[in-house]
Amino acid sequence: MTLSEAARHKSSELPIRADLVGRSPYGAPQLDVPVRLNTNENPFDPSPELVAELSRVIAQVGSRLNRYPDRDANLLRADLATYLATESQVKLTSENIWPANGSNEVMQQLLQLFGGPDKKLVTFDPTYSMYEDYCRNAFTKYETVSRKPDFEIDFEVINQVIALHPDIIVLTSPNNPTGTVVGQLEIEYLLENFSGVVIIDEAYAEFRAPGTPSSIINIQNHPLLVVTRTMSKAFSYAGARIGYAVADPKVIAALQLVRLPYHLSTITQEAARVALRFSAELLSQVDLIRSERDELANWLVASGFEIAASGANFILFGTFSDRNLIWEKLVEQGVLIRQTGPAGWLRVSIGTPQENSLFKTALLKVTSN
Amino acid sequence: MTLSEAARHKSSELPIRADLVGRSPYGAPQLDVPVRLNTNENPFDPSPELVAELSRVIAQVGSRLNRYPDRDANLLRADLATYLATESQVKLTSENIWPANGSNEVMQQLLQLFGGPDKKLVTFDPTYSMYEDYCRNAFTKYETVSRKPDFEIDFEVINQVIALHPDIIVLTSPNNPTGTVVGQLEIEYLLENFSGVVIIDEAYAEFRAPGTPSSIINIQNHPLLVVTRTMSKAFSYAGARIGYAVADPKVIAALQLVRLPYHLSTITQEAARVALRFSAELLSQVDLIRSERDELANWLVASGFEIAASGANFILFGTFSDRNLIWEKLVEQGVLIRQTGPAGWLRVSIGTPQENSLFKTALLKVTSN
Repeated sequence: MTLSEAARHKSSELPIRADLVGRSPYGAPQLDVPVRLNTNENPFDPSPELVAELSRVIAQVGSRLNRYPDRDANLLRADLATYLATESQVKLTSENIWPANGSNEVMQQLLQLFGGPDKKLVTFDPTYSMYEDYCRNAFTKYETVSRKPDFEIDFEVINQVIALHPDIIVLTSPNNPTGTVVGQLEIEYLLENFSGVVIIDEAYAEFRAPGTPSSIINIQNHPLLVVTRTMSKAFSYAGARIGYAVADPKVIAALQLVRLPYHLSTITQEAARVALRFSAELLSQVDLIRSERDELANWLVASGFEIAASGANFILFGTFSDRNLIWEKLVEQGVLIRQTGPAGWLRVSIGTPQENSLFKTALLKVTSN
Repeated sequence: MTLSEAARHKSSELPIRADLVGRSPYGAPQLDVPVRLNTNENPFDPSPELVAELSRVIAQVGSRLNRYPDRDANLLRADLATYLATESQVKLTSENIWPANGSNEVMQQLLQLFGGPDKKLVTFDPTYSMYEDYCRNAFTKYETVSRKPDFEIDFEVINQVIALHPDIIVLTSPNNPTGTVVGQLEIEYLLENFSGVVIIDEAYAEFRAPGTPSSIINIQNHPLLVVTRTMSKAFSYAGARIGYAVADPKVIAALQLVRLPYHLSTITQEAARVALRFSAELLSQVDLIRSERDELANWLVASGFEIAASGANFILFGTFSDRNLIWEKLVEQGVLIRQTGPAGWLRVSIGTPQENSLFKTALLKVTSN
């Protein structure tokens, strides 16, 4: 029995919170297959140059690991501000930025700060399933409003969300698992018509079409807007666990009330800074992933599949009367993708050109009769 | 204004949780002085050999950082079990162990699992002030019962705690900030007379007198006992942020319901494993810190100060009518200690022999008239 299976089966024997009994932990099935396109990882390994620099920096800071990390991660926050000035064309300072162990820790901190038993979070369905878990762990009410059939969000959908009187709205752009990018007009409409906390999850921001503005440009005028980012995807750094929030300095300061002291290790802070020094190299790989995505999207359509327009490093495609069967048959072919999103759809992460090619061959094989 | 100051001053302007308004973030003042004996860090830098091995391992795993970490940290958990078999003389498997980013993340997960709005945690005062913050963030009621005047815990104190009908009891041994070690008889009395969740925080366990049994030996017979440990202190690894829970496999499995997915980075998992390979070297430094502590305790008593009997890498001493004045005067002498615990007392971490000597000189100077 894996740890996840044990969690569901055995937890009911313990005096745990009633709302956790019988639940399963979040997590994609991890299978050892040749082509892993299931968790939206970046298929490109960090370069030998980056790894050498990382190793060198760790050798340098290793001798002071007996000391606690910089609790405020000042150097990393300054470096992230510099990166965003280039990537999002917005001038920020370290006071606008708060990093944590993955954007999921950022989200947990945001809900600990703004959520609670009398608060409600509303988001746009279908979306990232962890939001509901974050809410559950922060005792915050969770509701959703359906996106349009093409997974887009328009003013009417936004009005429906606002009509639910949320304290917090979460908008994911590009959305997971659909890849949908929300337009700047829609974001401005939301910000102008809602006075509560808006969290825009931009985990996949760097994969949008070049020139697409980031919601970060709206921070200066909206003190309750928080944009979250991650280094897991564009920076090829899922194993290093670094995410961050971008917001008005007041929000960043208030997050200190709920962050665990010394939450981010010295090693993690330095590892993030190393990757930021290689951002030009890493973003050029993002260009390649983006063009592979567009090519795969065209191929899927040409091959008769339906797709959701994606600005991320994955594509939601379908539809299948029995998606589980297709998923299993792909695993048999050595290709692991993800069963997620609305019934009938499957999600494939963009891999290397070779992996994408293997996926195409396998998909044609398992869907031909 | 520092981030901490900003948190208190500016947070009231935001729609944050009502119980957070006006609060200050946890954290010792960080001052740049020659002798830092304020946060119970290990004064000995990780050795050049350890650092070289860490750098080598990071160079090895760096090229797969584009992949998410092992969500279950299986290799690290097995290594921690091996370590505890030696250190605590208890045979465990990886199923008994759960690591996270510092024992404070472990504690947060435990409260997310067992706490909540209808639950109550009780602990023994004075103790580590973060427990109240953990409870606040998990919406769990927090109460305390006073230790005896010498900071010890006896059956009567335990009875008082049980009489409050807690869901969770936290017992810190050695206690922070007093250093008090709770006896095995008292722990067994507590476990036999209380049927809820017992968390024994053993952050400073390795510094107790040799031969003192660890509460880990009680886990086999008490499925709701959780012992927490850290690598910050004995392992000289505060900057690496690694703590862990030791408990019945059912508790470890249930923690999966609240842990953030991929909470522990590949780098952190490997960094912990490196330190564990150097445990013989690190524990020999613990011996030195222990003898320095005992010597400093004797010296404090001989110099006319009162002390709390300590089994940790710090000593609570006093008493002073104006402890803030003594603390400030010590800072002027280049020695940073901590104002914490009951009124009139100060806490000093055990440093290197040279640092302890500088502390003694400074203390005599600032307390002589």
